[in-house]
Amino acid sequence: MGRIAFLNGKFLPWEEALIHAEDRANNFGDGIYEVVVAYHGKPFYADRHIDRLFYSASQIELEIPYSREEIMDIITTAIEKSGLENAMVYFQVSRGFSEREHAFPENAEPTFYLTVKPFQPMPMEERRRGVKTITYPDIRWSRCDIKSLNLLPNVMAREYAKRKGALEAIFVKDGVKFTEGSSSNFFAFINGKLWTHPLTNEILAGITRSIVLEIAKELGIGIVEKPILTTMMDKIEEAFITSTTKEIIPVSALDEKRLNVGEKTIALMEEYVKLREK
Amino acid sequence: MGRIAFLNGKFLPWEEALIHAEDRANNFGDGIYEVVVAYHGKPFYADRHIDRLFYSASQIELEIPYSREEIMDIITTAIEKSGLENAMVYFQVSRGFSEREHAFPENAEPTFYLTVKPFQPMPMEERRRGVKTITYPDIRWSRCDIKSLNLLPNVMAREYAKRKGALEAIFVKDGVKFTEGSSSNFFAFINGKLWTHPLTNEILAGITRSIVLEIAKELGIGIVEKPILTTMMDKIEEAFITSTTKEIIPVSALDEKRLNVGEKTIALMEEYVKLREK
Repeated sequence: MGRIAFLNGKFLPWEEALIHAEDRANNFGDGIYEVVVAYHGKPFYADRHIDRLFYSASQIELEIPYSREEIMDIITTAIEKSGLENAMVYFQVSRGFSEREHAFPENAEPTFYLTVKPFQPMPMEERRRGVKTITYPDIRWSRCDIKSLNLLPNVMAREYAKRKGALEAIFVKDGVKFTEGSSSNFFAFINGKLWTHPLTNEILAGITRSIVLEIAKELGIGIVEKPILTTMMDKIEEAFITSTTKEIIPVSALDEKRLNVGEKTIALMEEYVKLREK
Repeated sequence: MGRIAFLNGKFLPWEEALIHAEDRANNFGDGIYEVVVAYHGKPFYADRHIDRLFYSASQIELEIPYSREEIMDIITTAIEKSGLENAMVYFQVSRGFSEREHAFPENAEPTFYLTVKPFQPMPMEERRRGVKTITYPDIRWSRCDIKSLNLLPNVMAREYAKRKGALEAIFVKDGVKFTEGSSSNFFAFINGKLWTHPLTNEILAGITRSIVLEIAKELGIGIVEKPILTTMMDKIEEAFITSTTKEIIPVSALDEKRLNVGEKTIALMEEYVKLREK
């Protein structure tokens, strides 16, 4: 079966998922999104993603046209219809089609788009080698806690990383601290403790971030939810990035700094794999 | 004739202007736009808008699929086809349709969408009464010089203004200075001189802003291109906002501060009307 999409209440071939040019997503990025992966046909922590979708929606006063249960149902049905074992489900909600005008439209119906495609997690051997990352100035707006469709700075950062042969760009705010990656959260081990930026308006509350912190706790690893400062670069012992599709990927280089893929990061990865293989 | 659109090389009825849900404008706001108005069937300062489109494009490394001359041609043809005397032409260019991935796609064709609709400038009597404006924190990214499709903060600011009975929200950066409106530039007369934020990455280089500065110069008005600080609120004698569709609109209130629609602003408005009626 070909790739499928779900648009405004109907399943249809992906190629036919068309929206009007004056949908508010298209003119303003006036919408939000989520990415859920499924392992062995089962969506992974979808409830947390749906909760975050509702959080993002509340922050921009966007009405989601479905209940939590209905969205879970659409995700599950879409995965089934795709016939995929490991799948990536992307979905976004915009404020809908309405003649272009900045203020919220009076009578627009939100647009709900979802699609499923094959997902192949990075193989363990590749992870163990780590990936190159590169810093990029954090020029984004101040509401990065909202998973919105305003992603141009993220696009620019990622493109920059790609050209430099890096997998991910790590944002540095005001030259002083690491916030997060262009589509990932950033973690580092410093003095044996696991550091990551606290949940503020400056970063996204990553679902994988939350799972990693739970695993770390269970493993008895000390956690420090404070900004990692650029002046602490020399103290970084291990580092990794997390996201739903990246899972946990060790960092082998952050700009010029080389890093070993260490035991602690590997321990977290192994526990993560157990969770998804459960 | 009904409303028309131009999409990827073809004129078509506006209702039929459909794009794929994975156009990069729809998922990332990865594109730029312009608004040109036409008076008596003639586009007004379209060359400056086209120049700015190419500037925005260069800043995000987006290739415009047409030359300056071709875009001018499309605008002129669209206005003719619409049969409108006074028209508003909206056009946007995105990085095109491509399976969702942050980095630039390898082989996508940019999407060029344009539409024309009737435009009615605000009547002079209404302008002379002035409009209410309200301040809103400038939470935008740091590249406001790019006229991009990442407009969610502008949408939120405008909606806030609307609910408070104001026509426009004026952004205040870090609590200390006025940058610009949610879709306008902001000017104030202070000690008889015309102040407006300088052209930096923090504001859009408004076309109407540039015309107003030219008129002011001709009228012998002193110009100060420096940020208007919030501490200077009490010194503001007159204020107004400018944009292509708003033209020049005097401000009668900025939050709690009442302002008179003064002679100097009216003089600028009158010269502006002469230009557009030429």
